[in-house]
Amino acid sequence: MGQTRLAISSCLINPIGVIHTPFKYAEGTPIQAAAGKGIQGVVELLPQFSPGLQDLVGFERTWLIYLMDRASAMQLIVCPYMDTEERGVFATRSPSRPNHMGLSAVRLLGVEENRLTIADVDILDGTPLLDIKAYVPAFDSFEQAHAGWYTGKCATGVLADNRFEVGRLDNDQD
Amino acid sequence: MGQTRLAISSCLINPIGVIHTPFKYAEGTPIQAAAGKGIQGVVELLPQFSPGLQDLVGFERTWLIYLMDRASAMQLIVCPYMDTEERGVFATRSPSRPNHMGLSAVRLLGVEENRLTIADVDILDGTPLLDIKAYVPAFDSFEQAHAGWYTGKCATGVLADNRFEVGRLDNDQD
Repeated sequence: MGQTRLAISSCLINPIGVIHTPFKYAEGTPIQAAAGKGIQGVVELLPQFSPGLQDLVGFERTWLIYLMDRASAMQLIVCPYMDTEERGVFATRSPSRPNHMGLSAVRLLGVEENRLTIADVDILDGTPLLDIKAYVPAFDSFEQAHAGWYTGKCATGVLADNRFEVGRLDNDQD
Repeated sequence: MGQTRLAISSCLINPIGVIHTPFKYAEGTPIQAAAGKGIQGVVELLPQFSPGLQDLVGFERTWLIYLMDRASAMQLIVCPYMDTEERGVFATRSPSRPNHMGLSAVRLLGVEENRLTIADVDILDGTPLLDIKAYVPAFDSFEQAHAGWYTGKCATGVLADNRFEVGRLDNDQD
């Protein structure tokens, strides 16, 4: 049994912008970017980061890394949207994970000043953005990679419910 | 000109483990997981997160999201390893980005208790781990996506130098 010697300290993350989408609540949101075909949103970057967007036009997709700020507390075992069995959270894309980080390869429609117009969106409105990275098939695309329990399942048409959500304000419904 | 009304607050992130690799310094490290073919490493998760690894066996690849803790301060314009021209940082995978987050689709060789054996590694030894996500081709693979300035360039055989690195301790060389 190897000794565990982990020197780990917390770190402060500063969101670099906000993601605007049509989805106020998890319920009814596509569960993955790939299943959110055509649904548009806007990434609003803090203006001081705009120079970093240079050369992004020409990429068909970009990764967004974001903070799923309305996800419920971490669960290490979850029942994911696409399954009826419980799974380890790291074998899923469930929001109720340590650090609540989300990852989506959205389609890039345009870049104007500090705003990206995006499509294929599966993200809640107002979600804090942590990073944007160009999607590069040579780095990111592994078409044939075995996908464990996801094999044979299809996200198309699967919509989220509120199982992983907190902070829904019922007086906000009208 | 739309009003910018961004309510953004910092958040504290707690690493969930550490990534062990053969690479002590950026210099000589493969610049992408896809270019680090065969090079092995170990992900050591804090033991309390081990139950979340259930069902990960069977996935050929997993995403690691990590903190590039030795990257130099953010630069919005960088000259990436694979180019001779300056590019906006969000159109690259340069470590010197806001929040210093790294993203790699590594090959999963095995899971034992709180340890993953991985291959195709492009990460520095001791890197703090923020998240593990199953790689699902239906969500993550866009084989034909246009890749802007990366088009026609190849990462294979390209190794990093120290242009994006700080904190190299010269007395640590022996």
